[in-house]
Amino acid sequence: MKIGVLLSGCGVYDGAEIHESVLTLLALDKLGAEVVCLAPDIDQHHVINHITGEEISQKRNVLIESARIARGNIKPLSEVDPKELDALAMPGGFGAAKNFTKWAFSGPEGNILPELKNLIVKMVEDHKPIAALCMSPTVIAKALEGSNIQAILTVGSKEGPSPYEIGAISSGMESIGAKSKDCDTANVIIDDAHNIITTPCYMMEASISQINEGIEKAMAKLVALTNLHMHHE
Amino acid sequence: MKIGVLLSGCGVYDGAEIHESVLTLLALDKLGAEVVCLAPDIDQHHVINHITGEEISQKRNVLIESARIARGNIKPLSEVDPKELDALAMPGGFGAAKNFTKWAFSGPEGNILPELKNLIVKMVEDHKPIAALCMSPTVIAKALEGSNIQAILTVGSKEGPSPYEIGAISSGMESIGAKSKDCDTANVIIDDAHNIITTPCYMMEASISQINEGIEKAMAKLVALTNLHMHHE
Repeated sequence: MKIGVLLSGCGVYDGAEIHESVLTLLALDKLGAEVVCLAPDIDQHHVINHITGEEISQKRNVLIESARIARGNIKPLSEVDPKELDALAMPGGFGAAKNFTKWAFSGPEGNILPELKNLIVKMVEDHKPIAALCMSPTVIAKALEGSNIQAILTVGSKEGPSPYEIGAISSGMESIGAKSKDCDTANVIIDDAHNIITTPCYMMEASISQINEGIEKAMAKLVALTNLHMHHE
Repeated sequence: MKIGVLLSGCGVYDGAEIHESVLTLLALDKLGAEVVCLAPDIDQHHVINHITGEEISQKRNVLIESARIARGNIKPLSEVDPKELDALAMPGGFGAAKNFTKWAFSGPEGNILPELKNLIVKMVEDHKPIAALCMSPTVIAKALEGSNIQAILTVGSKEGPSPYEIGAISSGMESIGAKSKDCDTANVIIDDAHNIITTPCYMMEASISQINEGIEKAMAKLVALTNLHMHHE
């Protein structure tokens, strides 16, 4: 079983959320899955000072920065044939909404990277499972926009404490064709029809142990669905 | 219980090892400890492309890059009074040997950052527990060089497969006054006389689950010794 882990940089405010990425790698390794880290070979939208929140005038590359999380074991997205992968895991972080789409700046109008749209659409069409954390369900919504597939996704709960506008992001996903559900950090939403698992992680106020709970559940389900799918073929 | 987690940047080849740092934060959170991330406000020695291993001509700051792992919740080392901390955890990565000391370039001759030497010496003199992972035991050896304290430390096992020269690094630590012991990734070395716990993590060839085992043991012991020490005072 070979599972792609898709990274969008290295750091919550301009790339992949680091805790979510590492805990995804840990959970998948514990479950015995072979992991391939992937990232697009493109410039980051920008670089953010993670103390002040201000932009740093510097160029960084998404693939090269993602390699920090992957300890150098990473492949450019363009070199990955979706056929090689049995499943896909997508940690969150603003990189999902700044480097993969432009949701952070333009909401659901923000474009998605074509090569990434292609990968996600192929996975979903082949019923290969995807687990998406935090902000990355918006990338799935963008990839499936205009298709006849209505994915059921979560980016958190409108009830719980969150630093973000969960209601607005949920509505945004619905405006481009997805169905949005509320979910807390310890739980997951499963779209059985399309083999898509989502959990909010740091979209909600949460400790690292709390996000780890949601990630462990999501990855266990991802591996279980992947096993099922591989034995059906 | 307030435990400092000392970071040396963000990425194994020029900063803190990301997996070790995140799994340290997870283990301490699970154990109910309050964590304060710390890093010195200094330039990194250099910036390394984590795919090619080559230097990138760019300046980055250790505190600002460490903030990526800490999600912005980090304090400059200079603003931390050792009295505030009940214990210290030190993840590894080349940052320990490039930004904290210059061991990566000059071996045991490489200087240690004075403010860090001061923190470590104060912690050890007060019998406050320290857990050091991977390459960071060499920082403890440097901090205690010339003192009358002989710490018992490990940087791995000369027997097991490792990408590094464990024998040479062990001898280097002994040449400046430490006692070095062999240890594998799943285990820890405990210096009972000085409340110092060390485990090799990625100094050995290991999976993320395997390093997590060593880190969980090290952090459980760190918290247990900290409890003991706090109740003795």
